[in-house]
Amino acid sequence: MKSIEILAQPLAPVVPLRAHNNHGQAQDIYLVREQPLTIYLNRIEIVTLMTMGTEPAYLIAGFLLNQHLIETIDDITSIHVDWTVNAAAVVAKNVHYVQEKTQQRVVTTGCGQGTMFSAVMEKVRAQVQDLPPLPTLTAEKIYALLRQLNDKNSVYRQAGAVHGCALCSDTQVIKVIEDVGRHNAVDGLSGFLALETPAHPPTIMYTTGRLTSEMVIKTAQMGLSVIISRSGATSMGVEVAEAAGITLISRAQGKRFLVLSGQKRLQQ
Amino acid sequence: MKSIEILAQPLAPVVPLRAHNNHGQAQDIYLVREQPLTIYLNRIEIVTLMTMGTEPAYLIAGFLLNQHLIETIDDITSIHVDWTVNAAAVVAKNVHYVQEKTQQRVVTTGCGQGTMFSAVMEKVRAQVQDLPPLPTLTAEKIYALLRQLNDKNSVYRQAGAVHGCALCSDTQVIKVIEDVGRHNAVDGLSGFLALETPAHPPTIMYTTGRLTSEMVIKTAQMGLSVIISRSGATSMGVEVAEAAGITLISRAQGKRFLVLSGQKRLQQ
Repeated sequence: MKSIEILAQPLAPVVPLRAHNNHGQAQDIYLVREQPLTIYLNRIEIVTLMTMGTEPAYLIAGFLLNQHLIETIDDITSIHVDWTVNAAAVVAKNVHYVQEKTQQRVVTTGCGQGTMFSAVMEKVRAQVQDLPPLPTLTAEKIYALLRQLNDKNSVYRQAGAVHGCALCSDTQVIKVIEDVGRHNAVDGLSGFLALETPAHPPTIMYTTGRLTSEMVIKTAQMGLSVIISRSGATSMGVEVAEAAGITLISRAQGKRFLVLSGQKRLQQ
Repeated sequence: MKSIEILAQPLAPVVPLRAHNNHGQAQDIYLVREQPLTIYLNRIEIVTLMTMGTEPAYLIAGFLLNQHLIETIDDITSIHVDWTVNAAAVVAKNVHYVQEKTQQRVVTTGCGQGTMFSAVMEKVRAQVQDLPPLPTLTAEKIYALLRQLNDKNSVYRQAGAVHGCALCSDTQVIKVIEDVGRHNAVDGLSGFLALETPAHPPTIMYTTGRLTSEMVIKTAQMGLSVIISRSGATSMGVEVAEAAGITLISRAQGKRFLVLSGQKRLQQ
């Protein structure tokens, strides 16, 4: 953990609800918690994220990094989350460019709605040569990872309605984060990677969600060289992966998957 | 159709790709198209949406309405989409408040990342009394709708990686829109409803995607009283539905569903 003052209680991920089934019978279920969290960066209101609230510090750090509101994690002095007012106060250095950014971008991030695609793609292309030693994968290694991941999507199994993302080495699941949106989950992983120093360095990002351009860009920004999704990918998701030298694997479930880019990294 | 000058070619929804399966064998598949579309409102750059591009005018109109960048569809004079530069030029009246909004909102919309929750909730509560005559639903009617919808998710069946939303009466599917994100799909329906006058007025919104607060808010803004999702819902999705008097049905597939709010509208 970096020397950042962090004060952030995790929330319980689910809340109970009495529902009714198609026969009109009452049925007690759990719903995923969705909670607003407004981030203030040096007292300036930046965004309201809707989150499950289980790992708020990672989410905040990852969001600020992925949106380029801070350049490096070391710029952050403190993160204080106060759920009684659903607000997070972040103190950081070198954020003089916030004002400029707020004037450029009206509606950005998330779910294909609003991106900073062109600016970020330049960075992604420049990053290709910096990728860590490339793992060589086999189908068996991928099946083994999928089996491990299957045991770890605890909120999804209890309540559904979440997406999960995970950092993995080629043999181990290092960190799983679930949240109400796939963008929050991957931002959480970015924050984890920036704040912690995992014993095994990750090379793979796994997600239950679809791989649109933004998801692949965020993975490239983490310096990972393989993305595996249980779902599918879009045309631009694959284009970005090609440009960034990332192996993109979709439809990965059980003992099946499709390689959409970077087949060379797969050993038969 | 309103008297708006619309110039907007639809794009083909999928693009071909040669992929490789887990045995290393080449396999020709289709990918969902993901294309940037930058919206200029009276020459001011508003947002870049990532979209499949099949119904751009509906998407643009719905986005502007749902983000309150225009108050009513009649404010729009023309929508011109030019895919050679991935840009849309919208001319509209009464958008003098754009500048003010761009300064307030840094990162908004989509996938739980950034919302205008508190401001919009006031409007939603005020809207409750304006809901159209409430349909009474039966399980059989819902099963019949689900069967109809099953035949209409054409892009999903071909390429996956999209979400679909639909406007329905209690007996008929009126309009289906698929896109790379559930927010685009529901914005497209808002635009359709604003621009066209369907013979059967819709009362139900169906979606393949999760029902987070924003999805429910957008449905309330369309004045619909029932939401049905194949997926789950979040705690705040249900809270908003309760506040807006909306019947929220989740996990609707085949002959099963769960009613999470507004059970009174279901007849046994």
